[in-house]
Amino acid sequence: MKPRLAITMGDPSGVGPELCLRALADPEFQESCRLFLLGDAALLRRVAEATRLSADFEIRTVAQWRSSTDAEAPVIVDFETPSAGTWDPGRVQGPCGRASFEYISEAIDGCLKGRIDGLVTAPINKESLNIGGIDYPGHTEILAALTNSERTCMLQTSDAISIGFVTTHCGYAEVPSKLTEDRIVETAELTVEALLRIQGREPRLIICGLNPHAGEHGLFGNEEAQTIEPAIARLRSAGIAVEGPVPPDTAFLPSVRARTDGYICMYHDQGHIPFKMLAFECGVNVTLGLPIVRTSVDHGTAFDIAWQGIADPSSLFHAIRMAVRLRPGQEDPCLPG
Amino acid sequence: MKPRLAITMGDPSGVGPELCLRALADPEFQESCRLFLLGDAALLRRVAEATRLSADFEIRTVAQWRSSTDAEAPVIVDFETPSAGTWDPGRVQGPCGRASFEYISEAIDGCLKGRIDGLVTAPINKESLNIGGIDYPGHTEILAALTNSERTCMLQTSDAISIGFVTTHCGYAEVPSKLTEDRIVETAELTVEALLRIQGREPRLIICGLNPHAGEHGLFGNEEAQTIEPAIARLRSAGIAVEGPVPPDTAFLPSVRARTDGYICMYHDQGHIPFKMLAFECGVNVTLGLPIVRTSVDHGTAFDIAWQGIADPSSLFHAIRMAVRLRPGQEDPCLPG
Repeated sequence: MKPRLAITMGDPSGVGPELCLRALADPEFQESCRLFLLGDAALLRRVAEATRLSADFEIRTVAQWRSSTDAEAPVIVDFETPSAGTWDPGRVQGPCGRASFEYISEAIDGCLKGRIDGLVTAPINKESLNIGGIDYPGHTEILAALTNSERTCMLQTSDAISIGFVTTHCGYAEVPSKLTEDRIVETAELTVEALLRIQGREPRLIICGLNPHAGEHGLFGNEEAQTIEPAIARLRSAGIAVEGPVPPDTAFLPSVRARTDGYICMYHDQGHIPFKMLAFECGVNVTLGLPIVRTSVDHGTAFDIAWQGIADPSSLFHAIRMAVRLRPGQEDPCLPG
Repeated sequence: MKPRLAITMGDPSGVGPELCLRALADPEFQESCRLFLLGDAALLRRVAEATRLSADFEIRTVAQWRSSTDAEAPVIVDFETPSAGTWDPGRVQGPCGRASFEYISEAIDGCLKGRIDGLVTAPINKESLNIGGIDYPGHTEILAALTNSERTCMLQTSDAISIGFVTTHCGYAEVPSKLTEDRIVETAELTVEALLRIQGREPRLIICGLNPHAGEHGLFGNEEAQTIEPAIARLRSAGIAVEGPVPPDTAFLPSVRARTDGYICMYHDQGHIPFKMLAFECGVNVTLGLPIVRTSVDHGTAFDIAWQGIADPSSLFHAIRMAVRLRPGQEDPCLPG
């Protein structure tokens, strides 16, 4: 049975709609899964016209999708938002933020009720969400709240590198107060579980330090001694193969990458700078610790090139493949052996 | 007239001594400059024996070097430190920290008095310095203090990427309080002056944000709006071509690197993670804002491989070439055209 996946269209004003149309039209995904694109058909038709893509797919109302997900072909689930004909490309707009939240919220409900097997998200815009009155900093926090998950983390994964994040979308200055021994252990445990499933073997992890040179034994900060090293000791006694705290600036050299299966990074840019350099447009974002499967593109709404038909769909395609691979109940069909 | 350069041996217990011996023996540098290696001859002989390198160079005492730097061949300036015969490889030792400080201090004096034209430093160990009673976090701070320079910054440069640093060797948590509009402007101005000299044209700079997504308009921190954007406005009105604040995680993608000559990074790992990924072992560290020319390797003491003869001298060789290029009074002989 092909897995049923919801794709949320993301912010209507960004590159999400055109990337989703490409995914629905792609023979690979017509073969490997059944895609339900949650969005607005009126908007998708406008994007299709602007980008010379096709929006010629079966359309169902939200009520129809709630009552049945037995369709074979790719389907657009139309939210029929009244203002969808007026949204502009490439602009922060409150109604777009609200609509993007509605798509996600509906998709989560579909997953929780078992009507679909997983969720793939196109990029949303945090400012539009905010202006639209949706008070979440990002997808991960929405997913955690709507699924009542207390213990989640973001994993960025690609063939080149995989990273679990202790903190993500918060200001630079907030990071030290968010680093706790428990949070580092939790992030590492969730990352180990996921990498075991994705890579098919017990992973070896590198835990990055927070400070330059990993603090150089306390000369530049003491978070390593006070928080990171005790967390590493706990992980080791739980039988997890960890190395660290590793100085962040040498952690991503080829010789170090060769001896690890994944990283634990303390903050957003510590991991996103090397990840994007190594895996731009082929990275996938997986939310760990949820009761549902959720993957995402690893790029933003790219307002500067929205509705032009030039956005690269690679990351979305990788995200769909990863959702197919991670869907529950599967015996890891893609793993070696 | 070939420039006279001092090379300081760095921490005796690290890879500095063997790298310096390689430089002294290299025909390229015997041709392009006159090298004075400031270190301990007894230690250098032990390293030479362990690594099967030659330490067979002219030896002068510190008193002799103070009275004359007219030698043609490479010269070892011997500090005759009594304990030099007992220092171990690969270990934090107070006497090594103290000795490495003495070499630097003497070299700075030689530059300031005009006996030599520039200074190239091999790596020191901050813990050894510290245990040895030398209360500086690194080379840059020693150089600033001993030359009475109030306005300095670190530039990391290579063929692939060049970065000026607003802050360097301090804990992660200290960075926000060190970011000021003046400091960002100063760092950018010093970087522009240096890149103009190194690259031979007015550079275009990218100024990175501090926060994830450069704060996403205040959602994740406000240092961009409060400090970085006002600094950028001042730089623009001074006629400097700057772009920013750029989200740190996309700043180092190839398409962005293609449109810039240099970066201004807010903190150590924001710049050192991408720099080491793009230019490991061929980067050079230049201290800007000093009255003297100073370049350095961009790696550490590498205690784990010290005195084994396997350390890569590329970064030291690049640092010597850069010092030759930057020496005062030169009409940029190495620039294109």
